[in-house]
Amino acid sequence: MVKVKVFVTLKEGVLDPQGKAVEQALDARGFRGVSEMRVGKYMEFYMDHEAAGDQEIQNMCEQLLANPVIEDYRYETEEVVSK
Amino acid sequence: MVKVKVFVTLKEGVLDPQGKAVEQALDARGFRGVSEMRVGKYMEFYMDHEAAGDQEIQNMCEQLLANPVIEDYRYETEEVVSK
Repeated sequence: MVKVKVFVTLKEGVLDPQGKAVEQALDARGFRGVSEMRVGKYMEFYMDHEAAGDQEIQNMCEQLLANPVIEDYRYETEEVVSK
Repeated sequence: MVKVKVFVTLKEGVLDPQGKAVEQALDARGFRGVSEMRVGKYMEFYMDHEAAGDQEIQNMCEQLLANPVIEDYRYETEEVVSK
């Protein structure tokens, strides 16, 4: 079994209103010195070993987990001994 | 300058309808062998070196970036030479 972690973030240059809002909320609560806040998606899941090839995971990301027009993605995989 | 990465996920046992929906959508597109999909938030931001203490980041997470009732968080920090 493989544990897959996918990180989806907005591409550089794409406006991130959610990030801006969180940054302002932090500032309003007195947390200073925070800049360039970007908010994205984090997904964790398990895959059968045979299914967990790079091409398969990239296809999943590009077809469903991330929007290739405005988002970048990266992923990490981790062998899981018993699940 | 410090780059901070925050990962927010639902606590074990908390129902994740979004994760379920994504898992089913993947299956519908022919991606087999995916299980226990959990969808969370991923945040990246920069902090002034002096402000980026562990206690400060934990306070930010517990007060704003994560909902401590239903979510867990973890974070990583990375020295950034020039920003």
